[in-house]
Amino acid sequence: MNLVLLTEQDLESSHGNLWRARIRDVRRYSHITRIHGAKVGDSLKAGILNGPIGQAQILQLTDQEILVELNNLELVSPPALPLTLMLGLPRPKMLKRIFQTIATLGVKQLYLINSYRVEKSYWQTPFLQDDAIHEQLILGLEQGCDTQLPEVHLIKRFKPFVEDHLPDLIGHSRALVAHPYTEAPCPRELNKPVTLAVGPEGGFIPYEVDMLVRNGFTPITLGQRILRVETAIPFLLSRLF
Amino acid sequence: MNLVLLTEQDLESSHGNLWRARIRDVRRYSHITRIHGAKVGDSLKAGILNGPIGQAQILQLTDQEILVELNNLELVSPPALPLTLMLGLPRPKMLKRIFQTIATLGVKQLYLINSYRVEKSYWQTPFLQDDAIHEQLILGLEQGCDTQLPEVHLIKRFKPFVEDHLPDLIGHSRALVAHPYTEAPCPRELNKPVTLAVGPEGGFIPYEVDMLVRNGFTPITLGQRILRVETAIPFLLSRLF
Repeated sequence: MNLVLLTEQDLESSHGNLWRARIRDVRRYSHITRIHGAKVGDSLKAGILNGPIGQAQILQLTDQEILVELNNLELVSPPALPLTLMLGLPRPKMLKRIFQTIATLGVKQLYLINSYRVEKSYWQTPFLQDDAIHEQLILGLEQGCDTQLPEVHLIKRFKPFVEDHLPDLIGHSRALVAHPYTEAPCPRELNKPVTLAVGPEGGFIPYEVDMLVRNGFTPITLGQRILRVETAIPFLLSRLF
Repeated sequence: MNLVLLTEQDLESSHGNLWRARIRDVRRYSHITRIHGAKVGDSLKAGILNGPIGQAQILQLTDQEILVELNNLELVSPPALPLTLMLGLPRPKMLKRIFQTIATLGVKQLYLINSYRVEKSYWQTPFLQDDAIHEQLILGLEQGCDTQLPEVHLIKRFKPFVEDHLPDLIGHSRALVAHPYTEAPCPRELNKPVTLAVGPEGGFIPYEVDMLVRNGFTPITLGQRILRVETAIPFLLSRLF
């Protein structure tokens, strides 16, 4: 937790630009007291969800809660990536880590999309419930020192999404699909918006790649090595931006 | 498993350039039969550990083992990264994934190094036993379609390693230490060997960074976002090479 991220429920009162917040949940309480070893008077880097970043000074620390006062809320989050990321729905056990990773890296628009190689049962996982997604995104934001919550969209039908909604979504961005069996290397350091599609385990099937290409996507490859999705995401984003 | 990786123990006999192998372990057996759904006569991409890559044709499939014949062993692994990677020893639960990731990405020299912020108990984890490391490296190679086993070195004392061994190890490579609190951005697309040091959770302490700098390292940053080590590694390697 490189940033203490406070939500509306934590915030208590405003006095001009000063806010107080009470941290009552076990996860943050024990992280702040045990890992940071923070004491009354200490200041921690803190931000308000979808708001500014400053310092949280500890006013009181009981065995129930931490009362903090927010000061110098004058910083903003690091710039978001100019990216819309479309991922073939990964297997459930990978989801928590992927939500964290995209939030840490600054992705703000994530579309999890069905595909031929996505097992139908994956859509039933509790990790896709709103609360569960939110929890992991918060962890990722705390890691990346960012307060701006990403939006996650669940797209259970591939074809109507690609044909009816994707063209608008792409807009003027560069649309790329990561596909191991193509020749064009992933471009580097693009200074423009990107819509990036990454297949599920085993990749998009040729029919799906063709449909993406017909709707404006260019296939690109990361080379001979086939990466797991949680490795491919930071690898792709580091290269593109 | 994008490549069936065969070891000496699997190989049975040679007939000129042809080899046979028996796959008897549950992990590979069930992956090949259940996930690939392979049958007698099918060919799978296969390689010999530290050797060439070709095809494995299934000759027999019993409920005990898969007998394959290796053909066209004429391909080589994707190029290794010209990199020596030094990592502050991560917490044990991250180790399995990190060994897999570095093997998939083509790192061949990994030094896990002690640092002030590494908890002493981490060195006791069973995940650092030779067999445990080997197992995860194999999984990573199978993912990345590579047969060349990385070397993992455990360095339990920071100072003598940095002062006495590191200068030789660096040689003529570019020596970089990833450090969040510096100005210089990580260079892109270096076409030369790199020695890269990445701190443990919480980073190297200033004393350690100073010692690395005195021994030839340049601090570089990935920006304002602080990445977990398993995200930072693909991110750094994608940018550097």
